[in-house]
Amino acid sequence: MQDMVRVVVDAMGGDNAPGEIVKGAVEALNAREDIFIYLTGRKPVIEAELSKYTFPKERLEIVHTEEVIETAEPPVMAIRRKKDSSIVKGMNMVKQKEADAFVSAGSSGAILVGGQVIVGRIKGIERPPLAPLIPTKNGVSLLIDCGANVDARPSHLVQFAKIGSIYMENVMGVKNPRVGLVNIGAEEEKGNALVKETFPLLKECKELNFIGSVEARDIPQGVCDVIVCEAFVGNVILKLYEGVGATLISKVKQGMMTSLRSKIGALLVKPALKETLKSFDASQYGGAPLLGLNGLVVKTHGSSKAVEVKNSILQCVQFTKQEINQKIRENIIKEDQKG
Amino acid sequence: MQDMVRVVVDAMGGDNAPGEIVKGAVEALNAREDIFIYLTGRKPVIEAELSKYTFPKERLEIVHTEEVIETAEPPVMAIRRKKDSSIVKGMNMVKQKEADAFVSAGSSGAILVGGQVIVGRIKGIERPPLAPLIPTKNGVSLLIDCGANVDARPSHLVQFAKIGSIYMENVMGVKNPRVGLVNIGAEEEKGNALVKETFPLLKECKELNFIGSVEARDIPQGVCDVIVCEAFVGNVILKLYEGVGATLISKVKQGMMTSLRSKIGALLVKPALKETLKSFDASQYGGAPLLGLNGLVVKTHGSSKAVEVKNSILQCVQFTKQEINQKIRENIIKEDQKG
Repeated sequence: MQDMVRVVVDAMGGDNAPGEIVKGAVEALNAREDIFIYLTGRKPVIEAELSKYTFPKERLEIVHTEEVIETAEPPVMAIRRKKDSSIVKGMNMVKQKEADAFVSAGSSGAILVGGQVIVGRIKGIERPPLAPLIPTKNGVSLLIDCGANVDARPSHLVQFAKIGSIYMENVMGVKNPRVGLVNIGAEEEKGNALVKETFPLLKECKELNFIGSVEARDIPQGVCDVIVCEAFVGNVILKLYEGVGATLISKVKQGMMTSLRSKIGALLVKPALKETLKSFDASQYGGAPLLGLNGLVVKTHGSSKAVEVKNSILQCVQFTKQEINQKIRENIIKEDQKG
Repeated sequence: MQDMVRVVVDAMGGDNAPGEIVKGAVEALNAREDIFIYLTGRKPVIEAELSKYTFPKERLEIVHTEEVIETAEPPVMAIRRKKDSSIVKGMNMVKQKEADAFVSAGSSGAILVGGQVIVGRIKGIERPPLAPLIPTKNGVSLLIDCGANVDARPSHLVQFAKIGSIYMENVMGVKNPRVGLVNIGAEEEKGNALVKETFPLLKECKELNFIGSVEARDIPQGVCDVIVCEAFVGNVILKLYEGVGATLISKVKQGMMTSLRSKIGALLVKPALKETLKSFDASQYGGAPLLGLNGLVVKTHGSSKAVEVKNSILQCVQFTKQEINQKIRENIIKEDQKG
């Protein structure tokens, strides 16, 4: 198991658990030989799902847990009380270094709380941000923070920028990633109090490729690689991306059904259109990592299907092999100690 | 001029001034008989544009101004110094009750500052919000505030909700408009400090049809009629709407050009698609009114064409005839004095 990346997958979390979760885990195992997967959850259910597939059995282990944390439960209470749940057990395995990463499509609240309370922050990291990749015109950008820390302070945003740069450079292979600060105008004097205080701090960071303020309008164009914002704003961006996309696509489909002429046209454009829109679908890019922890926690969408689960697991491999946490410790913490 | 609505239009503001602005003004004059228009700006240029059209000359007057406020100028300074500019002159006419409303596609900053400093707030209104209509699946919603007051307080958001309800009910004809608070989750305990404090205050307002928190994902579905948020968040929503829409449409077009089959299909679907997408285009709905002033100021998009200018002017007519400001005074200010 020397070069194996060990990923715990929460088999009970999400709208499509356990079926799609188990399927995604199997697909990941079959895609790479350097993954070992632990599935946490109810053993009989997981075994029934696994029996449908062929896969290298020596690289999978079921860790039975009796409890399940529901999406509607108050997260702090759930993490504290349900010790024998698929989430708490999985996170404890990361904490104990029995695994490198934990993937779940379950309760966002429980995952955020558990990440901080159980897995714990890297020393010196003030607030671990949640950072999904979002599709842009010709690629992807990292949105950091998209929901972990509302009412953040300027120093938090500076850490987000540094963590995000390391991630994009090492996991996504973007050389010298462009960092933008979400703002309501391009000029330095624009913005709210948080942004105005953060701007000069980011400008001072010589190790960052800070390109200044970015307006929400330009985000889908791929104007920067690391999109820095406070969690409330980030969450609005992520969800509006989904919402506008879904509504527009349904409008386009509806428009194509208005006449016989357009219906025939629709049949002809359908395959090409499907391919194009796929590239603008966030699920292609795996889940949102909660960064800055002693290990890795990845939150995938509640409605995740096997492909997203698989991609999230593969993301954990890249993250672990690239020693991202080591780089965060070296570049961010040392930098801060100098200052 | 008893029942005439008098609208000052800034002929010098925006990327397409004066051509499209003057054209839009003429179109508005020809559309309704109860509009009188003042065009502020350089007389010779405006006259040259007007000479292209036929329109009722007795309902239009040019008010010559020598100066122009540029988009890049610091707004407070510009408003203070350029007394003979199309913006300052136009706003002074509203202040002096020589006109009912002012429409401009010029500098957002100067319009926001001028609205507050020159036209002035209705007594009791804490912060006048900027409130554009945004397209949704089956109609439009009012986004309030989308850029006037960053770092707002809970009491401001409550006023936005009340002002927005009056606007949607009386200008747009929506009975008992549904008011939603932008949040990052549907539960009452979710959100940042501002939202958590605002939620119970809105719940207490018996005169509002408050439906609770709304997530950004559901906004394009038209989940509520009045979308209440702080200006930074509102600005991100407005601009991301534009950005995601534009990028997706260009993706769809690009996708249709990938094969001969899809190109033929594209020709067939084009007319139907164009019609559908038009309904999702914000410019159809006029400009963004700055509400709660002693008069009306409407900011139209910097890239406005004649149709947007025309629609913004028609919006002023509806606003004035419905006596929105009178209703704001009666419903909001009296309510507050009771409390």
